[in-house]
Amino acid sequence: MTTITIHSSTHEYEVEIGSGLRNQLAERLLKNYQTVLVITDTTVAGHYLNDITKHLSSVENLHTAVVPSGESSKSMEHYRSLLDQCIDAQLDRHSLIIALGGGMIGDLAGFVASTYLRGIDYIQMPTSILAHDSSVGGKVAINHPKGKNLIGSFYNPKQVIYDVETLKSLPEREIRSGYGEVIKHAFLSDESWVKNLLQQSLKDLTSQQLKQDLTKGVRVKASIVEEDEREAGIRKHLNLGHTLAHAIEAELGYGEITHGEAVAIGLLFTLQLSEIKNSAHLPIKDYVNWLEKNKYPTSIMTKLDPEQLLKRMKWDKKTVHQNINFVLLEKTGSPYVIQMGDEELVHELKRMISAR
Amino acid sequence: MTTITIHSSTHEYEVEIGSGLRNQLAERLLKNYQTVLVITDTTVAGHYLNDITKHLSSVENLHTAVVPSGESSKSMEHYRSLLDQCIDAQLDRHSLIIALGGGMIGDLAGFVASTYLRGIDYIQMPTSILAHDSSVGGKVAINHPKGKNLIGSFYNPKQVIYDVETLKSLPEREIRSGYGEVIKHAFLSDESWVKNLLQQSLKDLTSQQLKQDLTKGVRVKASIVEEDEREAGIRKHLNLGHTLAHAIEAELGYGEITHGEAVAIGLLFTLQLSEIKNSAHLPIKDYVNWLEKNKYPTSIMTKLDPEQLLKRMKWDKKTVHQNINFVLLEKTGSPYVIQMGDEELVHELKRMISAR
Repeated sequence: MTTITIHSSTHEYEVEIGSGLRNQLAERLLKNYQTVLVITDTTVAGHYLNDITKHLSSVENLHTAVVPSGESSKSMEHYRSLLDQCIDAQLDRHSLIIALGGGMIGDLAGFVASTYLRGIDYIQMPTSILAHDSSVGGKVAINHPKGKNLIGSFYNPKQVIYDVETLKSLPEREIRSGYGEVIKHAFLSDESWVKNLLQQSLKDLTSQQLKQDLTKGVRVKASIVEEDEREAGIRKHLNLGHTLAHAIEAELGYGEITHGEAVAIGLLFTLQLSEIKNSAHLPIKDYVNWLEKNKYPTSIMTKLDPEQLLKRMKWDKKTVHQNINFVLLEKTGSPYVIQMGDEELVHELKRMISAR
Repeated sequence: MTTITIHSSTHEYEVEIGSGLRNQLAERLLKNYQTVLVITDTTVAGHYLNDITKHLSSVENLHTAVVPSGESSKSMEHYRSLLDQCIDAQLDRHSLIIALGGGMIGDLAGFVASTYLRGIDYIQMPTSILAHDSSVGGKVAINHPKGKNLIGSFYNPKQVIYDVETLKSLPEREIRSGYGEVIKHAFLSDESWVKNLLQQSLKDLTSQQLKQDLTKGVRVKASIVEEDEREAGIRKHLNLGHTLAHAIEAELGYGEITHGEAVAIGLLFTLQLSEIKNSAHLPIKDYVNWLEKNKYPTSIMTKLDPEQLLKRMKWDKKTVHQNINFVLLEKTGSPYVIQMGDEELVHELKRMISAR
């Protein structure tokens, strides 16, 4: 098991990454909680909820709440319903919420935990690769019909317990999605890691390789959020590839493309812009090959209208009345923020689309 | 003008108390905000919204949102509708929310500000006496049908601008309500202040006296929340009188009794318990006279069932599975927390009711 300690503004917490951790849950909890609510989705419940409840049988009042799988559960309706369930289960200030699932569950259950009784303890138990990113750093939120994550908090978990065994049940598409954030973390930090990843075909991924990539990714994320928890400065770098990704997701409607797939496409745009703006030497050709080899849906760009994407990017929560802030790379491991004009963005989007 | 600086865990902010501050609002703002949303209620809007918008005419995008007066607006429905209005008004991370009103508006608008885009700036502009308490310390929340303030955050304002001129329009009942929290702050801190207050008839209150009492109250609140922002320890002392008060309010249905009136009655119960539990010397007789002289509705207790009140107190958000924590006084200025058994509480409630 690998343990990474995160120093947040409110407390320290540990990310434990290892095999079979879900079956050691009772021993891993830092406190004796009398009342626990496990929040998960239908897919994850089918695979792992029994394991969890079996290993928490010593908890006096153990409750579970299951929402439908998919991004559409990250809604005001489900938020509200989960708060009702917290109240019905009589969770008090000494109770615990366990977020068992991917990023959607982590965000939703984390937002519930952050606002129920003005905040109670919660633990992230990620069951996706993508959630190696979202489970660390305390960003929790729900979506609004007008945009992703518009309603939320900064609220750190008490622990992150990452059982990599639960990743075995992931379908191919989810592995692809997860590696969208993994390769983003690589581009933000380490040229040789990027090189290794670009040689990797995701269908041949070993458990060992996966665990290593996740651990590296968590370390990158941790080092950034420790320095800038509330995104006043360098945390913005984590948005690498995300400005376009959010616009693509919003334009297609949530669920049409996975988040990590959209990030991988947004990343390609970022690399191309970086080359144009500052002649950065980046492995764009290898990256395009890697995207194709691993079946990232880059051709989806041809269905999208650059002007509409621009509008969505402007109405990303980071800014409204100004130019769009873009994270670009000077080189691998050296991100920076630059303001991009509307015309230039549309022009480059058109160029990217015509190349598909 | 009196200025009190509050050192919160996230930032310092100032409480400015003075006459006519609403008419100097533009100069008082610490930043140039391009987009501002003023949230207020119908009553306050009628009195002061014009003053505010007139003095903020230099703000590029100035929006207002008005909810119905009364505690029932502190609901999930209004929370949600205000978030929609934030989005429609295109508030971004550099925008400001102004909470113009009493405690209800402060709590509701503060909760919106704390969760919109994971938190944007907000300013408290209290227009009630009661809000001298709630506008300081960063507790924001909405109600749930099952209880008060069950959904919320700890989120400090950037400034508190307290224009005491706005208190002139308060009806008698609201002055009575406000002084429920004022006298609580006195009992928590200063015997001679209690003595002065108990000689005071609220209908003869001068502006000077009022401003002094509010300033003292804010100082008491500030010194406690600075030491314990998240209510892990001494902030619990601020619950003096509140455990029963919340139960009374919930039993009667919100709006039947004002919060401060309920606190004043809860305070009487607290004083009586303090005498029984530790022979505290407290001016109970003078306090009863003061309550009667100022028409606090103590006789309402005769309509309430002790067993039901106990149930409500147990289902206060502070605890569920344990005995009830009560804040009592050793003497004026010396609060402490004690666990009270169910039977003892019911017995003392019966005694209190039969004395009405």
